[in-house]
Amino acid sequence: MIEVYAFATPNSVKVTIALEELDLAYALHGINIRQGEQGTTSFTTLNPNQKVPVLVDHDARDEKLVLTESAAILVYLAGKTGRLLPATGAERARVFEQLFFHASALSPAFGQAGFFRRFASETLPLAIERFDNEARRVLGVLDGVLAHRDFVAGDAFSIADIAHFGWLWRRSFPGIALDRTPHVARWYEQIAARPGVQRGIDRVEALTARN
Amino acid sequence: MIEVYAFATPNSVKVTIALEELDLAYALHGINIRQGEQGTTSFTTLNPNQKVPVLVDHDARDEKLVLTESAAILVYLAGKTGRLLPATGAERARVFEQLFFHASALSPAFGQAGFFRRFASETLPLAIERFDNEARRVLGVLDGVLAHRDFVAGDAFSIADIAHFGWLWRRSFPGIALDRTPHVARWYEQIAARPGVQRGIDRVEALTARN
Repeated sequence: MIEVYAFATPNSVKVTIALEELDLAYALHGINIRQGEQGTTSFTTLNPNQKVPVLVDHDARDEKLVLTESAAILVYLAGKTGRLLPATGAERARVFEQLFFHASALSPAFGQAGFFRRFASETLPLAIERFDNEARRVLGVLDGVLAHRDFVAGDAFSIADIAHFGWLWRRSFPGIALDRTPHVARWYEQIAARPGVQRGIDRVEALTARN
Repeated sequence: MIEVYAFATPNSVKVTIALEELDLAYALHGINIRQGEQGTTSFTTLNPNQKVPVLVDHDARDEKLVLTESAAILVYLAGKTGRLLPATGAERARVFEQLFFHASALSPAFGQAGFFRRFASETLPLAIERFDNEARRVLGVLDGVLAHRDFVAGDAFSIADIAHFGWLWRRSFPGIALDRTPHVARWYEQIAARPGVQRGIDRVEALTARN
């Protein structure tokens, strides 16, 4: 059995989308981060970094596996099923290149741009400008990638598409639009139309509605 | 033949350390980011994201491979050699968990903390405090990990140790000390003493000395 601790967040939705795309059954547990549930003792035991999502695989090969970091969970699920991640070669390397470009560039830029626009206790124009510019810059780099590829890592849908989709689905948080990145806009519509992606979104959105 | 485009940066040193640890020969080309060489047309062709390091593997299985993102390069080199990354199971999942914790949490926190302390055109106490606190928080999480493991992902040295080492080697940039994180301090000394790590550092430092 697979359990997932998550909320309607950019990183959580990556995991439910991957599980739906891979046809893996799972139990979903809501961790309401608006009410600080990621800081409870029981959740901190699962993830000392106090972030959703967390995956617990009771059917792991060697033991019960508790795994954090959304992209590490994507790599694990791809390895478990042999899908959504090419086994060798340049195709495989491109998936990791995009996963780390997402984790180290797009995700922090979108997150900080949203924070300084919405949550900072003072308005800091210099910080807002820094992260706005960086969010738009990395989106431009991604648009260049998608100008000559159907999917972010090549000709096939992969876990790297799922990773980028997570934050682009929540692009209203940093106030990013796709009108100047036509290739990203085309790709986003294509990914969003997949039934597995829609089911993954529905699962995490139901967690918010309940609270 | 393997070529690496790099400078004496936290991300570049990860790649030279991995190549030295894996006994792979390589030609190293300096890209002086202090003089903006990452913005030249020729470098932008290699990496549209305009970041070092970049690896070019002329002996890749299917074609000449040009690969960006330091952690993706680490995963590629581990796959090419079958070393520094366990093949299966929880041990493998832990390496990816730490690679993505590094890429999404430690690396951006250290980078932004250093930027707002040193390079921002205005002093923004709120931004300095935010990223200082986050850098110390993630270092504390890593200290908890290392309290019960010899290496960051388990009992064996892996590419995840190389990734974390890159930024901890440059901890003076964000002004971080290790005096409150004894497990990280113990681990750092252990990693820094490895001959392959020392050779990897020497190679990138020689690039700075030359300029």
